[in-house]
Amino acid sequence: MIYLDNSATTQPKEEVIQSFQLASSQFFANPSSIHPLGGRVEKLLRTAKQQAAETLGVRSEEIIFTSGGTEGNNTAIKGIALEHGQRGKHIITTEAEHPSIYDTCTSLENLGYRITFLPVDENGLVSVKQVEEAIEPDTILITMMYVNNEIGAIQPIEAIGTMLKKHPKVFFHVDAVQALGKVPLKLTGSGIDLCTFSGHKIHGLKGTGMLFVEKTTTLFPLMHGGNQEYGVRSGTENVAGAVSFVKALRLVMEQYKQNIQHLTHLNEVLRKGLSELKDIVIHSSSNGAPHIINFSVLGVKPEVMIHTLSEKEIYISTKSACSSKELDESRILIACGKSREEAISGLRVSFSYDNTVAEVELFLKELHNAIKQYKEALG
Amino acid sequence: MIYLDNSATTQPKEEVIQSFQLASSQFFANPSSIHPLGGRVEKLLRTAKQQAAETLGVRSEEIIFTSGGTEGNNTAIKGIALEHGQRGKHIITTEAEHPSIYDTCTSLENLGYRITFLPVDENGLVSVKQVEEAIEPDTILITMMYVNNEIGAIQPIEAIGTMLKKHPKVFFHVDAVQALGKVPLKLTGSGIDLCTFSGHKIHGLKGTGMLFVEKTTTLFPLMHGGNQEYGVRSGTENVAGAVSFVKALRLVMEQYKQNIQHLTHLNEVLRKGLSELKDIVIHSSSNGAPHIINFSVLGVKPEVMIHTLSEKEIYISTKSACSSKELDESRILIACGKSREEAISGLRVSFSYDNTVAEVELFLKELHNAIKQYKEALG
Ligand SMILES: Cc1ncc(COP(=O)(O)O)c(C=O)c1O
Ligand SMILES: Cc1ncc(COP(=O)(O)O)c(C=O)c1O
Repeated sequence: MIYLDNSATTQPKEEVIQSFQLASSQFFANPSSIHPLGGRVEKLLRTAKQQAAETLGVRSEEIIFTSGGTEGNNTAIKGIALEHGQRGKHIITTEAEHPSIYDTCTSLENLGYRITFLPVDENGLVSVKQVEEAIEPDTILITMMYVNNEIGAIQPIEAIGTMLKKHPKVFFHVDAVQALGKVPLKLTGSGIDLCTFSGHKIHGLKGTGMLFVEKTTTLFPLMHGGNQEYGVRSGTENVAGAVSFVKALRLVMEQYKQNIQHLTHLNEVLRKGLSELKDIVIHSSSNGAPHIINFSVLGVKPEVMIHTLSEKEIYISTKSACSSKELDESRILIACGKSREEAISGLRVSFSYDNTVAEVELFLKELHNAIKQYKEALG
Repeated sequence: MIYLDNSATTQPKEEVIQSFQLASSQFFANPSSIHPLGGRVEKLLRTAKQQAAETLGVRSEEIIFTSGGTEGNNTAIKGIALEHGQRGKHIITTEAEHPSIYDTCTSLENLGYRITFLPVDENGLVSVKQVEEAIEPDTILITMMYVNNEIGAIQPIEAIGTMLKKHPKVFFHVDAVQALGKVPLKLTGSGIDLCTFSGHKIHGLKGTGMLFVEKTTTLFPLMHGGNQEYGVRSGTENVAGAVSFVKALRLVMEQYKQNIQHLTHLNEVLRKGLSELKDIVIHSSSNGAPHIINFSVLGVKPEVMIHTLSEKEIYISTKSACSSKELDESRILIACGKSREEAISGLRVSFSYDNTVAEVELFLKELHNAIKQYKEALG
């Protein structure tokens, strides 16, 4: 099997599953229970949090464990909107967001908020100037992804964060779900107030994630209740999930530099191979994240490609997994100004560190065969 | 070890952990991916949902997998409030709710909603009449727990549901987190529109749960995004979590009758034993759920009891775990009209099916010793 759909989800590492299993069976008590069984579990959770904080260079109190990226994005956006809505009701985002930002923003329109969806250029990018010019006196939040999940575009997050230091009342939320471990990430001192992470995109488990909340930032909690996670995210803590998330985080960050080098190499091999095939348009810019390449095979239905490749046990995807069963056309590719033909035929290859050059070469060969077959059959 | 804190959390069953592990490693793809790996996972998820639906006698489309009870309660309450807020802004609940209902309702006051917190009687109960009389023309939701997590009181849910058939515009949400597997539960045709469940209270895993949403009921989603779970709960599905939840659900419901009989027997043994000890006031009514008994040892600090018993590896709790580190006094016991002395000294024993009569007897013996020791030291 050649699994090239790592932006949809990754295979959890054996060690990650083991740490989940161990924590579930050996540390099952409720960390809020005051008896020693509870105390032991609370300590485990606190240690995991400290490890996560150290790995990311932030404070323990800035780490909120969540059930995933969607929860993180909703907590950040709705949390700022509802908590600071009396100061202003304007939010800035972009046209190329993941639905967990895009639809969350849209949903706030029904509650009286005004959303500016910034257009993106042909590479899926906004400029710092564009963002700054969109700020109005009642702007409370800027929210966007760092790395685009469909095309790998890298927004100028660092520069936007720097610019926003002039606008201290505007909160800055970054969705780093596709960025973690793939591009440089600095949180403390960056101007970023909130940052979302998801476990299952870094060989962790589904149902796990983390939200960074800068220590002076206040939120209206998405979930009220027993005041776990400093009151930002109530609910009995998924201790095993948190521990397994931190395990995945540490594994990914330990090998950070080598991983990026390896992904960059895979990217180059694929890009070169694709450019040698006929009828292929690459949508991802070469300045994008190394693990995602989006392209169209003109004149071939993407489902056919997926199907033919899967018969060889090669797995790639159309658009993002989250919406692939719903719309025909990629909202992201349309936002980048692609034609409808391109926007309905986008295919995405997304790498993990575990993929090899040999796998990429085999993929290229089978892609070539599949296109040839299809054209011959039609032709 | 004698673990008697099962209302805080239960030890996950080996089979449940195994099913989580198997699904995580063997069915790791994203169920939304259109390639066959994704299809396999989607089928697994759909099958799990069908099994859950069958077990509870509801439809598959009425089952939403969540990250736990707190998420379920927040989804139900905020979801109804925000979706139907234009029709009315009045919500009815009780004074004896878990914080995930109580604080969620309070939070809505900041958003312009009016909450009626019904007082409860000395057993923690409201009457059908009280609920009906509280209904106003702009009431949109009645939300309450079925079984109280601190004292085991069983609200007259069935009768309230029947009464509410006269008020078809008022939604009825029930928190069945402590009820599942311990008292009879009927969903379809019961007048209940939304019902919350949590995995870790039924020997499942933390971070898993389920919300029943009757098929005609519409909600403003707590989490917007990729429209998973019929759009009610976006986010890449925690497939392994869902599968493990359904495993736990089925295990509990298969043995349903024997379990209740066994719990009732344990309850009787404990109640009799406690009534033979001096200085003990039992707060839980004998009509309550069989797995929870709350009592005070007058004149003894509850932390001292917890501590002394834990030295014998016997684990019980003060109040509910969720809030035990925060307040001294039990809001629930105060709501039941107990004195402050009683409300700060409440101890909770909560059973699982796995507890034995021998364990209860040993607990009673060690409780007796602990009280004697303490009184002697003071005397
Ligand atoms: C950029 C981005 N943000 C958010 C999400 C949502 O994360 P999760 O699947 O953990 O809910 C995803 C993945 O689906 C994503 O790619
Ligand atoms: C009655 C009741 N409702 C809701 C909850 C919250 O469930 P969870 O711990 O899964 O968030 C609990 C447990 O803490 C509970 O006892």
